[in-house]
Amino acid sequence: MKQIVTAAFIIIGDEILSGRTKDENLHFLACALGESGVILKEVRVVPDVEQEIIDAVNIVRKKYNYVFTSGGVGTTHDDITIESIAKALEDNLVKNEEAANLLANYYGNRLTEIHMKMAYLPSRAKLIENDILSPSGFLIENVFVIAGVPKIFRAMFEGIKKEIVGGAKIKSREIKISLPESSIAKVFADLQKKYPQVTMGSYPSEIGASLVFRSTEYEFIDIALEEMVKILQETDPKSIVATS
Amino acid sequence: MKQIVTAAFIIIGDEILSGRTKDENLHFLACALGESGVILKEVRVVPDVEQEIIDAVNIVRKKYNYVFTSGGVGTTHDDITIESIAKALEDNLVKNEEAANLLANYYGNRLTEIHMKMAYLPSRAKLIENDILSPSGFLIENVFVIAGVPKIFRAMFEGIKKEIVGGAKIKSREIKISLPESSIAKVFADLQKKYPQVTMGSYPSEIGASLVFRSTEYEFIDIALEEMVKILQETDPKSIVATS
Repeated sequence: MKQIVTAAFIIIGDEILSGRTKDENLHFLACALGESGVILKEVRVVPDVEQEIIDAVNIVRKKYNYVFTSGGVGTTHDDITIESIAKALEDNLVKNEEAANLLANYYGNRLTEIHMKMAYLPSRAKLIENDILSPSGFLIENVFVIAGVPKIFRAMFEGIKKEIVGGAKIKSREIKISLPESSIAKVFADLQKKYPQVTMGSYPSEIGASLVFRSTEYEFIDIALEEMVKILQETDPKSIVATS
Repeated sequence: MKQIVTAAFIIIGDEILSGRTKDENLHFLACALGESGVILKEVRVVPDVEQEIIDAVNIVRKKYNYVFTSGGVGTTHDDITIESIAKALEDNLVKNEEAANLLANYYGNRLTEIHMKMAYLPSRAKLIENDILSPSGFLIENVFVIAGVPKIFRAMFEGIKKEIVGGAKIKSREIKISLPESSIAKVFADLQKKYPQVTMGSYPSEIGASLVFRSTEYEFIDIALEEMVKILQETDPKSIVATS
């Protein structure tokens, strides 16, 4: 059986904490990692403060298989992620020739010293391959450092997939019911006790509730889900709105 | 001058980490706290695991003035927030008479023992006043524990405002420019050095960039912003798209 592979996501930026910008990357990353067999276990949003970034990265990179960061990789003074990452991983910023070439190709004769700032990466950094030819994403040890702009963040994911070694994928199935979750709480708790290999969650919905069954194996999910369907059919057949 | 008052937000739930559910509360809370003079300094998303909840709450409640949690307060077995909070704050769950009355009024003769589970709160818990008469929000010490359902989360905020003592509000103004941020990086960094009382941030946008000036005093913001406007007018008057 495949191993469980885990990750943390650190969102860096005052603009998320102040409410100026709405994060669009967490939900994308959670889904994309799930499909790649990596389980997102923790997320932190931290301000543009060097020590906060260093502390967060150093805690989570030892705790999980992979770390992803977003934000703070641009050319202005408030972009401090790359330097903070270098400090956290005890590395120095050096001119990355591959990044320099991408910048030279992109800007042509408009290229300035300021643009070239983006080519200074930790010496052990490896650029993430991407279709938009952006240098704004790299890997160092188990940490992926990515631009916060959603379009760039997403464009990096194909390249990230080539670098990560995924483990067991968490599969999930769901029963939508027209009953409030309180009405099934007791039987659902008993079912959870009976099948500890399946993680069962109940979430209130507009119509009642969604009962979610999660496991690395459909085999386990199906046994538990079918038992729940049977219980619902016996008590109130109309309560099952859909299963998926 | 008013003091700075800070907060952390802990989002509790496997469903956010798996991507099943998209969080809708962070952006609302960031904005609502900002308007109330509370600065959101950190956010964490943690799974439905007791020790993870306890550790996260115990770290942030000592670090910031207020803590807000969302999720895990329902009636099913996967709702472990209230018990975890009680353990983190070394309290016990007891029947909260006010919560019990709200539940009795809401459910009438449909009230079951399962519903009544929601009335068991830490002994020092104080319910949050709300218009929808929900018992799914309470305050204990400096920790606000709130349901994750966005409609309920939002309904609690009027009651929360009565409990929090806000500090200095962070004001902000913005210049939208049609230039890429790299082209103003140098002058903007110099301006930041000149006016350390104002936190300046640059964010790439569809049309170029947004330059954001933040401070507790409009007086400081205006001086810095006007200087930046002047610099832009001198170099390229058409680059200023809007100021707000």
